[in-house]
Amino acid sequence: MTSSQPSAKRQKTSEESEEDNTPYELIYWPGLPGRGEHIRLAFEESGIPYTDSAFDPKCMDLVLSHISPENHGDSLNPPICAPPILKHGSLIINQTPNILLYLGPKLGLVPTAEEDEGGVYHVNQLTLTALDGLSNEVHDVHHPVDTGLYYEDQKEEAKRKADGYLKNRLPKFLGYFERVLGGEASKGGEWLYGGRLTYADLVLFQCVDGIKEAFPNAMKRIENEGKFSKVFALHKRVEERPNIKDYLASNRRQAYGMGIYRHYPELDEE
Amino acid sequence: MTSSQPSAKRQKTSEESEEDNTPYELIYWPGLPGRGEHIRLAFEESGIPYTDSAFDPKCMDLVLSHISPENHGDSLNPPICAPPILKHGSLIINQTPNILLYLGPKLGLVPTAEEDEGGVYHVNQLTLTALDGLSNEVHDVHHPVDTGLYYEDQKEEAKRKADGYLKNRLPKFLGYFERVLGGEASKGGEWLYGGRLTYADLVLFQCVDGIKEAFPNAMKRIENEGKFSKVFALHKRVEERPNIKDYLASNRRQAYGMGIYRHYPELDEE
Repeated sequence: MTSSQPSAKRQKTSEESEEDNTPYELIYWPGLPGRGEHIRLAFEESGIPYTDSAFDPKCMDLVLSHISPENHGDSLNPPICAPPILKHGSLIINQTPNILLYLGPKLGLVPTAEEDEGGVYHVNQLTLTALDGLSNEVHDVHHPVDTGLYYEDQKEEAKRKADGYLKNRLPKFLGYFERVLGGEASKGGEWLYGGRLTYADLVLFQCVDGIKEAFPNAMKRIENEGKFSKVFALHKRVEERPNIKDYLASNRRQAYGMGIYRHYPELDEE
Repeated sequence: MTSSQPSAKRQKTSEESEEDNTPYELIYWPGLPGRGEHIRLAFEESGIPYTDSAFDPKCMDLVLSHISPENHGDSLNPPICAPPILKHGSLIINQTPNILLYLGPKLGLVPTAEEDEGGVYHVNQLTLTALDGLSNEVHDVHHPVDTGLYYEDQKEEAKRKADGYLKNRLPKFLGYFERVLGGEASKGGEWLYGGRLTYADLVLFQCVDGIKEAFPNAMKRIENEGKFSKVFALHKRVEERPNIKDYLASNRRQAYGMGIYRHYPELDEE
């Protein structure tokens, strides 16, 4: 695949080139984009091959074997609490922002330490903030009282939570990223950091995309009001990256389902 | 200060030794341990000096200036969404696990890449998981419906959430860390990873400590049941580290207040 941003990729040392042959395995629940999507987008943007358990008929068993109470990890790797999981050679890690931290330099999706000593930490903080406010909190909207109960058992509280989320929390976080894009460290306001695409941009894309799915009316109103135009422009800019565009049109991109970003019309604005 | 674990500190290069003179500044809300406590414990354990805005009479103004909608960061640093914030030379970063990621190698609280290539990622994933399940979720218990409303306005839902948390979520996460401590990668079950104290242990200590404060009855029952004895032993082991012991007895350790870990007797077990 061709990359429209070759400068983002650093030169590989011979040791790293060797390592590049080690397959990347994403292990995540089947049937919905979920938190695994952030990992998929990183591979897809950079054109690096990976396997995705979502398309393996034995996926459920594979995920469950990792998070089973009987699984204590191995001599190198602690056990896993929850997917997404990345397996790369003998390394097994989880936690979305942690997997992206690991993949960032390998996929050319963060500045190298030589280019910018603080780059890794800035990209990580932007990623963590997007996941906090635009992913985890969105999940909590439809499960405010108990993640173990059905939505139907906490529908009234979910409506109150959705109202507060759309009125206060969503604008707070969109406003934060608009502020980031308006800041000097963004180097021009097209990308969150350093004038080039990083994995934080892919994460923000996926969060905004998911919220559009969950709350189409509210997001239309917010987009039309024009207060966060740089954030919406970034979403569009990522969507139109050649590799991302191909991916979104492929059957590797799964439909939103009963995951983080659920469309319950009664939780959206009218 | 003396460290009882000198092998945890790697040799500093001359460049790094120079950098060591740059002061570390923690910027966090005054009056409660909060998320800033994870950063304080890292400095205190390693005996590295730091300044703490909590004891500066202008603390509120300082924090608010960083998170103000008018603050767009500078040419090197994106603006900040929320504290804790670390300032180190020209670098300004936020997000608790991100600050710990940055400090880990500098304070000797993670294995170096030479010792263990996966160490940084494993310690980061353990940290992220503790913060997810034993800190962020605990905050949500007393604010299930709207973080912008008072506890009193969501007391009934908080009681339902607390019941589910104590019954399902808390044992799930304590069980996960018990599983980690029982795994081979812990190298003996005293510390979470690699047979030595890392900042993930300090984070787990603070989480368990806070939950003991918030839910003393439930935690007493759980501790007595003995199912998570390795986790409780780790809490005690950290508490008795010489530097940590001194810190906990000092006036630098602030009392729990209206932060993450609040003791509402009506939310605890009887």
